[in-house]
Amino acid sequence: MFDTVTIVGVGLISGSFALALKEKNLAKHIIGVSRTQASAKKALELGIIDEVLPLNEAVEKSDFIYVAIPVDVTIPVVLQIMDMINERQVVADAGSTKFALSNALKDHPMHKRFVSTHPMWGTEYSGPEAAVHGAFAGRACVICDAEQSDDNAVKIVEYIYKQLGMHIVQMNSESHDIHAAYVSHISHITSFALANTVLEKEKEEEAIFELSGGGFESTVRLAKSAASMWVPVFMQNRENVLDVLNEHISQLRKFKASLEKENVEYLTELIENANKIRRIIK
Amino acid sequence: MFDTVTIVGVGLISGSFALALKEKNLAKHIIGVSRTQASAKKALELGIIDEVLPLNEAVEKSDFIYVAIPVDVTIPVVLQIMDMINERQVVADAGSTKFALSNALKDHPMHKRFVSTHPMWGTEYSGPEAAVHGAFAGRACVICDAEQSDDNAVKIVEYIYKQLGMHIVQMNSESHDIHAAYVSHISHITSFALANTVLEKEKEEEAIFELSGGGFESTVRLAKSAASMWVPVFMQNRENVLDVLNEHISQLRKFKASLEKENVEYLTELIENANKIRRIIK
Repeated sequence: MFDTVTIVGVGLISGSFALALKEKNLAKHIIGVSRTQASAKKALELGIIDEVLPLNEAVEKSDFIYVAIPVDVTIPVVLQIMDMINERQVVADAGSTKFALSNALKDHPMHKRFVSTHPMWGTEYSGPEAAVHGAFAGRACVICDAEQSDDNAVKIVEYIYKQLGMHIVQMNSESHDIHAAYVSHISHITSFALANTVLEKEKEEEAIFELSGGGFESTVRLAKSAASMWVPVFMQNRENVLDVLNEHISQLRKFKASLEKENVEYLTELIENANKIRRIIK
Repeated sequence: MFDTVTIVGVGLISGSFALALKEKNLAKHIIGVSRTQASAKKALELGIIDEVLPLNEAVEKSDFIYVAIPVDVTIPVVLQIMDMINERQVVADAGSTKFALSNALKDHPMHKRFVSTHPMWGTEYSGPEAAVHGAFAGRACVICDAEQSDDNAVKIVEYIYKQLGMHIVQMNSESHDIHAAYVSHISHITSFALANTVLEKEKEEEAIFELSGGGFESTVRLAKSAASMWVPVFMQNRENVLDVLNEHISQLRKFKASLEKENVEYLTELIENANKIRRIIK
């Protein structure tokens, strides 16, 4: 489909995206752009990219430019790219927050060539070594503010994600950021805080390691996620995240109160209410 | 190894245990005891057990009796069983709390035939349909207060768990309950509270369902766990759980403070500290 694609960032998301493009024969040649020489070299070695170039040279040669870097640097880098492109090129990002980016871009004369996307897939690992084959399949991909982009650009991006096995959900970037706070950002904060709880109070690390079953591992797994990715997400989505975090603390206080008062009925009610998540998460 | 084994309770743990005994040729005949006729019938249909009997008849016929029921009923049921057994029989439980049970049993004249165990394996599902083949393998099994049991009883129980692929960790029941609060009980409370947070604030359930990626699912998965199992666990381990829960709330408050003050350095520090969990959880 594309002769040449550039991925900006050569990490978990961009790397897995590049692998998928190749597997699905959607790109002949993939250029990697990275601030970190070691990562670029690693991505080349792993066969994720075919060539490493500086941003301006890479963009010039590419039909499609895919930006997957921390959300704080996404804004200046995408703006820089928009200054370089022509009317036939398409740019998309994969960031976890969308509203600030949308605001930063909306007055750019080329903004219609940009498509704001958030594929709802990831792992707690980062860097080119974290890239995996078969990522994205079966998950939703959010496309934000599609009406602000050219129809043909949106269609191209949707087509790629569908070829990767994703289904498309369209919404505006403001709604996206609220939902993302619930279904992703709070899970990460909970998991980070749980790790800190255990590390603070449980000095016998050997015991944690020996005893932790699947339950602990699955709730604490996200705590391995990189600060360089998540700090900018939490800062950009600060108000929504604070809203959800306040609610989460108040929900935990209900468990605390039920235990302090040995109120078995209340504790049961809290758990049975939580069980309703079965309706939503199969 | 055994001619006849009784499992008391025919759910996730006991059912998976029975399946494993059969697979490893550790039991010729397995009797199921259940308060719920429907569950007993289902366990028979699924081939988990060979026969259903009332507790007294089952115990009389059995070399080994394995109790895996909610921890509040474990105490009276195990005491009842201890009144029926002889010096050649062995009894073990699989409960998630150990200290209260140990105290309740220690003055029973037959207490040396009882082995207190906690296999660190489970899922969020319950009932005989939740029983799976190949459970337990690769996980730790805690044996508590082994010095209070007959050596030969401990050896038999350890042998069984090892045949199931578990490795044995010995500790006293008081330590067990502290560690369990950290590596299991708090994860469940966090997950229940997270489910309640999302259900309370996020009214657009369709959006949760559409957007939830792997991260949300793994942190909220335990929220499907049954109140009938977890309320008694939290109540029996109330003081340890409250200790850890207070710490967890205070860790969440640190994230809240860092966001409220837009303190990027502090937020980064909190996340990087949480990343140390990588040392412990591979």
